[in-house]
Amino acid sequence: MSFIPKRLYRRRTEKTGLAPGTPMHIGQRKMEMIKITVIDYDAVGYYEERETTDIARLAKAKETEPITWINIAGLHQIETIEAIGQIFDIHPLLLEDILNTEQRPKIEQYDNYLYMILKLIHWREDDNEIETEQISIVLGNRFVITFQEQEEDIFDPLRQRIRSGKGRIRQFGSDYLAYSLLDMVVDHYFLILENLGEQIEVVEDELVSDPNTTTLQKIHDLKREMLYLRRSVWPLREVIGGLQRDESNLIQEATLIFLRDVYEHTIQVIDTIETYRDVVSGLLDVYLSSISNKMNEVMKVLTVIATIFIPLTFITSLYGMNFRYMPELQWRWAYPLLWLVLITISVFMLAYFRKKDWL
Amino acid sequence: MSFIPKRLYRRRTEKTGLAPGTPMHIGQRKMEMIKITVIDYDAVGYYEERETTDIARLAKAKETEPITWINIAGLHQIETIEAIGQIFDIHPLLLEDILNTEQRPKIEQYDNYLYMILKLIHWREDDNEIETEQISIVLGNRFVITFQEQEEDIFDPLRQRIRSGKGRIRQFGSDYLAYSLLDMVVDHYFLILENLGEQIEVVEDELVSDPNTTTLQKIHDLKREMLYLRRSVWPLREVIGGLQRDESNLIQEATLIFLRDVYEHTIQVIDTIETYRDVVSGLLDVYLSSISNKMNEVMKVLTVIATIFIPLTFITSLYGMNFRYMPELQWRWAYPLLWLVLITISVFMLAYFRKKDWL
Amino acid sequence: MSFIPKRLYRRRTEKTGLAPGTPMHIGQRKMEMIKITVIDYDAVGYYEERETTDIARLAKAKETEPITWINIAGLHQIETIEAIGQIFDIHPLLLEDILNTEQRPKIEQYDNYLYMILKLIHWREDDNEIETEQISIVLGNRFVITFQEQEEDIFDPLRQRIRSGKGRIRQFGSDYLAYSLLDMVVDHYFLILENLGEQIEVVEDELVSDPNTTTLQKIHDLKREMLYLRRSVWPLREVIGGLQRDESNLIQEATLIFLRDVYEHTIQVIDTIETYRDVVSGLLDVYLSSISNKMNEVMKVLTVIATIFIPLTFITSLYGMNFRYMPELQWRWAYPLLWLVLITISVFMLAYFRKKDWL
Amino acid sequence: MSFIPKRLYRRRTEKTGLAPGTPMHIGQRKMEMIKITVIDYDAVGYYEERETTDIARLAKAKETEPITWINIAGLHQIETIEAIGQIFDIHPLLLEDILNTEQRPKIEQYDNYLYMILKLIHWREDDNEIETEQISIVLGNRFVITFQEQEEDIFDPLRQRIRSGKGRIRQFGSDYLAYSLLDMVVDHYFLILENLGEQIEVVEDELVSDPNTTTLQKIHDLKREMLYLRRSVWPLREVIGGLQRDESNLIQEATLIFLRDVYEHTIQVIDTIETYRDVVSGLLDVYLSSISNKMNEVMKVLTVIATIFIPLTFITSLYGMNFRYMPELQWRWAYPLLWLVLITISVFMLAYFRKKDWL
Amino acid sequence: MSFIPKRLYRRRTEKTGLAPGTPMHIGQRKMEMIKITVIDYDAVGYYEERETTDIARLAKAKETEPITWINIAGLHQIETIEAIGQIFDIHPLLLEDILNTEQRPKIEQYDNYLYMILKLIHWREDDNEIETEQISIVLGNRFVITFQEQEEDIFDPLRQRIRSGKGRIRQFGSDYLAYSLLDMVVDHYFLILENLGEQIEVVEDELVSDPNTTTLQKIHDLKREMLYLRRSVWPLREVIGGLQRDESNLIQEATLIFLRDVYEHTIQVIDTIETYRDVVSGLLDVYLSSISNKMNEVMKVLTVIATIFIPLTFITSLYGMNFRYMPELQWRWAYPLLWLVLITISVFMLAYFRKKDWL
Repeated sequence: MSFIPKRLYRRRTEKTGLAPGTPMHIGQRKMEMIKITVIDYDAVGYYEERETTDIARLAKAKETEPITWINIAGLHQIETIEAIGQIFDIHPLLLEDILNTEQRPKIEQYDNYLYMILKLIHWREDDNEIETEQISIVLGNRFVITFQEQEEDIFDPLRQRIRSGKGRIRQFGSDYLAYSLLDMVVDHYFLILENLGEQIEVVEDELVSDPNTTTLQKIHDLKREMLYLRRSVWPLREVIGGLQRDESNLIQEATLIFLRDVYEHTIQVIDTIETYRDVVSGLLDVYLSSISNKMNEVMKVLTVIATIFIPLTFITSLYGMNFRYMPELQWRWAYPLLWLVLITISVFMLAYFRKKDWL
Repeated sequence: MSFIPKRLYRRRTEKTGLAPGTPMHIGQRKMEMIKITVIDYDAVGYYEERETTDIARLAKAKETEPITWINIAGLHQIETIEAIGQIFDIHPLLLEDILNTEQRPKIEQYDNYLYMILKLIHWREDDNEIETEQISIVLGNRFVITFQEQEEDIFDPLRQRIRSGKGRIRQFGSDYLAYSLLDMVVDHYFLILENLGEQIEVVEDELVSDPNTTTLQKIHDLKREMLYLRRSVWPLREVIGGLQRDESNLIQEATLIFLRDVYEHTIQVIDTIETYRDVVSGLLDVYLSSISNKMNEVMKVLTVIATIFIPLTFITSLYGMNFRYMPELQWRWAYPLLWLVLITISVFMLAYFRKKDWL
Repeated sequence: MSFIPKRLYRRRTEKTGLAPGTPMHIGQRKMEMIKITVIDYDAVGYYEERETTDIARLAKAKETEPITWINIAGLHQIETIEAIGQIFDIHPLLLEDILNTEQRPKIEQYDNYLYMILKLIHWREDDNEIETEQISIVLGNRFVITFQEQEEDIFDPLRQRIRSGKGRIRQFGSDYLAYSLLDMVVDHYFLILENLGEQIEVVEDELVSDPNTTTLQKIHDLKREMLYLRRSVWPLREVIGGLQRDESNLIQEATLIFLRDVYEHTIQVIDTIETYRDVVSGLLDVYLSSISNKMNEVMKVLTVIATIFIPLTFITSLYGMNFRYMPELQWRWAYPLLWLVLITISVFMLAYFRKKDWL
Repeated sequence: MSFIPKRLYRRRTEKTGLAPGTPMHIGQRKMEMIKITVIDYDAVGYYEERETTDIARLAKAKETEPITWINIAGLHQIETIEAIGQIFDIHPLLLEDILNTEQRPKIEQYDNYLYMILKLIHWREDDNEIETEQISIVLGNRFVITFQEQEEDIFDPLRQRIRSGKGRIRQFGSDYLAYSLLDMVVDHYFLILENLGEQIEVVEDELVSDPNTTTLQKIHDLKREMLYLRRSVWPLREVIGGLQRDESNLIQEATLIFLRDVYEHTIQVIDTIETYRDVVSGLLDVYLSSISNKMNEVMKVLTVIATIFIPLTFITSLYGMNFRYMPELQWRWAYPLLWLVLITISVFMLAYFRKKDWL
Repeated sequence: MSFIPKRLYRRRTEKTGLAPGTPMHIGQRKMEMIKITVIDYDAVGYYEERETTDIARLAKAKETEPITWINIAGLHQIETIEAIGQIFDIHPLLLEDILNTEQRPKIEQYDNYLYMILKLIHWREDDNEIETEQISIVLGNRFVITFQEQEEDIFDPLRQRIRSGKGRIRQFGSDYLAYSLLDMVVDHYFLILENLGEQIEVVEDELVSDPNTTTLQKIHDLKREMLYLRRSVWPLREVIGGLQRDESNLIQEATLIFLRDVYEHTIQVIDTIETYRDVVSGLLDVYLSSISNKMNEVMKVLTVIATIFIPLTFITSLYGMNFRYMPELQWRWAYPLLWLVLITISVFMLAYFRKKDWL
């Protein structure tokens, strides 16, 4: 298993010494080409969705009436990101953060836009490991810009909802769109939690039926995944809290109640992670004592066998001696008598062990 | 044993991707038919109790003078719940919460009503496990609506009190009714605590008399039940705290003192859970050291037997050798002398072990 | 040993379902008859002490000039308590708290009186266990009412001080009287701490000289007593803090400095309990490693004996074989030579074990 | 080793039942006679130092211009202390605190003076244990009174500085003098920390070279000393913080910056204690696993020896049997062949153990 | 390995007793000669860099327009430092702090300058240990003075940036220069984290492949290094937080956003350290249970061998007895039959062990 936290900080250090605010992509290149998707919609029924490469035309979004959602998938073409930054007046430090996929979730408030970094958690099926993707959201007055590391379909249901015009989404402003994105990211955590819950259950069953060294490794891996998950989710709470206390006019009153809802979901996620952590710690205790128990059982078997046979062997060895004058050796019934003695001793010992509850 | 925390989050994930505020029943269907009970009463003696299916008529409760308590048992008929929601102007997100039985206890304040989610804890006798039921309380000016997952008789004593007209309940408003419900839920926790206390005692006795692997399992189960209980009770503190700081005019001055009382009971429940957690952790320590002790005892028996007989067997084996020239073998008193030596060695060793306190 | 925390909550549950504010005695009946003692005194020399059963006459205390201290020992005559409650206008919920001896220490402020619940800790000599008694103090303008579970002499020195008229007590008002009661309760904790300190020391000595299973039980019992004590003392801090921040005019400026003093004693008690907890946890560690050490020692003895004699026995067994052609058997000096070999091996092994520090 | 925390509270209990504010010396009598030293100095060059027994003349210090430092060493002559208390108008509760050497460090602000309790920590060389001395400082407008348990020379460098007139001390007021005393007490803690650091290092070396039962005892003692030290230093932080927030006019603006400095030293002491605690906990872990390792090694030797020789002895024992018809016994080369078999088995086993990494 | 925390406090104690504010170099002398480098620059293109020994001329920096960065490498020439202190009006306590390299990171605000102590962490390659260097920064209106313990090249990239005039640095004031220094120090921590991460990974691999005593030592060392690092970084958070809340006019609005950035990096460093601590604790658990597992395996081998051969040896020993009347000895097929018995027993036992999962 690769070591998770290291992955986070390795590439960060390449930047040491550069001037702050120098945009540089830190992270894995997860797709071939940057892909920019623009969705325009308004409450009365206008809807347009297109893919574009003409960045200059994006500027329109700032002025026109419909709400614009610009989604940029892929972060490795720095010039494109910088161009978008210039069009929407995004602070250079913020562009740096967008490109550095090792950021901690956070929220920043500027004069005319809000900036959020979120962590989307995937479960990589092939090696059964957690993977994060950084999602940056820039919320302006009439537009939302999202930056993703890869082209994921997690926002597809949302696009579908906008397209169909059902629900509140087209009635509300860009803040509701940003909220919906946030909501989807948080909802995604529940999938991960379910997955983790199942893994915990598997480990639990293994602990009862057949604890072995790989069980320990699995417990250890679960602990680490929890550590990692926790790190991504805890700051999210502050992010949403910050949104709720927002003093810009970007968040409308009506959206606040929805933010409260997503806030509570986050608390629930955090709660569950903490509970899981406690459960996994408990599993470790159970593992350790089951190891002790097994050892105990092994010891008992050894002790029972050894303590029964050692005295018996002593006796037989005794009569294997070659002394000239050993009267017993000549007795007629010595051998059957000896058997009697041996059996008596064995029975007595077995009774003792049974009393001691070792059998 | 089924794994508790998972139970909580499994079905939550089915909703991922749906628009927020889409009501959907998340949880187990615990009864056949929704059952709606309406109780009307006022301070001067009016009292009416009826079961109804005519949701439209419920609207009356908002205007008429008597205080109305509408109890809805069963959450699986979404349309009924939605209809009630529309009549009483309940926010869609809130309806979603009522139907999602995996919510965390919380309080929400709206313009003209308060909304609380509580967790009622039952002890399922058949498999000796904790079970929660979600109770949602909507407190309006002249009415209280309660949503239960199943038809439980826990509120029966309260109904009885209203019916009989004894005590304060009919003199006070709907806020006192809500408080009484809250009080009954909290009082119910003491039953669970008593039950847990008894189980802890059973495990303790087992630890002293005969610690075995099922003891460990029981300790582990107790720990998990505590984790679960804790999760349900901690947020309750904030709920009641929130009620006390309430700025709407729904809670009257006279009721505040009662809220303070139920708040203290909650603190007491939390205190006890924390104490139990410490006690159960202590039990684990005791279990582990009793395992160590047992192993120690086993080792001592093995060591005593082995160390006594190994040298003796060496000696007997010595005189079992077939060398031609072994003068001792020819001695007249060699054999009795050998017995003397063997007995001397044994006595000496036994004395040594007694000194070492191994016998 | 009876299980402490359970004792606390068992009877609490009998009340589940009753209307809040229904007075009911929860706790053990510790004495035959309720005993009401009234002490009147003022600064200029008036002093009267009497036992009474005439509750109606107690009402006088509210109006007359001298300060009145009414002490009620025994809580099982509900009607008497209720009558007193009515005379002094005590809130029904508060009466319920006075009668329920399982309360947490707390302070409550009403319009014209303050109410405190304290826990007096006794050390029951016969079974070496901690026992609590609930002391309720109602502080009014010119009177103090105290409720005790049993007739204890812990307040005797205070009565003596009032009687003798020495010190400040008769110069100050009822608030100083309440403070003095509080001070005596807190001072009493130091006795318990001293007792616990001695027990810890005993266990420590046992750990060094002869750790055994009862030592573990004692450590476990100490931990539990500490848990219990802690639960009684922590809330006391808030109680005294609450008194200091009191906004009623019941506490005079001059008394505040004394409250600060008793507050600091409480902190000191809490500090010591926490230190004791750390010390007792340390003892558990020492116990566990001394068990490990003992096991280690047992193992070493077994290993030394077994590893010395097993090879020797092999050799002797070798020459016990009955092969026809074993030249050594016929040698003249074979037997003495064999002894030489055996001794050489033993010496070599002993040297090895000494080097390994096993002897 | 005597049990430290108990020492603290044993004598405290003798006071239980006494009226608050009754001065009584609690603590060990550490010197023969009380010794009162008076130093007068001002900024322009006046300096006088004398020992006195005439308490009445001390009153002058309150009015005269020069700054007076009165040092009282020894606390067992209660009347002397009371007389000083009356002269300087010290509150009775405070006198009680001065005499009770078991106080927690604290600060108290009165109308015209500040009162501080500090703990001076010594390292008792003879039994290698920590010892505290209580230092009380009363800071008035033109005077400082210090109470010490014994005549110590720790303030000598300060006296020297005043005498020589170098540095700021004579230019500043009594608050700077109080600060200087505080600074010396805190500086003294660094000596203790250095000493503890050295002891930790000694234990560490022992852990690596030769861990034994006394090592465990030393770790345990270190833990306890740390607990004790911590208890003395943590409250000091609040004391100095309290001084900084002081609202009386006793602390001048210019001294505040020095207080900030000593505050930071205290933080540094606390930091180091916490680090040491972590380090010592780590040592315990290392000790426990080194015990496990040793046991493991012992087990391996036993297992290697036993598992090699047990099968060999079986074989030799086999050919020691006296059956009439055992063809091998008659073979010409049976014996050498047997040796071959025995050696082969041994070599095979040794190879197996080497592969298992047990040799 | 030398013991880290001790290193910190050893020399500190030499000062005990000296007047506060007496400058004295506490720390290791890390270079031959103090080296003073002065850089002057302004936004319009002026740039001058020179080494100087003429301290008097430095005074100019306070008045002239260009921004001046004075870097002093080496702290052992107290007079030089004092002279600089006098020129720039630095408080004596602060000079003491600059010279005492054992300070905790902190910020202090004076009327016309800000003072910060930072810790630069190096990784000493030769003995694989962490080393700190204290960096003091004095930020005035038009100048920044930095004090370093040794002549390090870590600020070289910054000098390069100023020289080249690229980026914002020459456009902004002295506050931005101070921020840039801070940023470089924090960026440096990521290098250390990466290094630690790699070491953790090495230890993890070792744990899986071949855990031995040195692994434990390495885990222990990692824990200690983390403790040490933590101590240096936690206070940094307060330092930067203090800068952000600064009320002097030294920090300009435009720089605040950069400070927020470096603040977040610090949080990220702290987060990672905490995660590493958890990971390393987990490693210890894994180590301990792998030791248990190994022991378990050793025990199983011993038990299997011993329990198979002990009964067999008993049987062979039985027929080695020399009784006159043992009918079996005379049987024709006794010997082959015996072999059958022996093999049957072995097979049965092996089957039993396989069932028990010991093979």
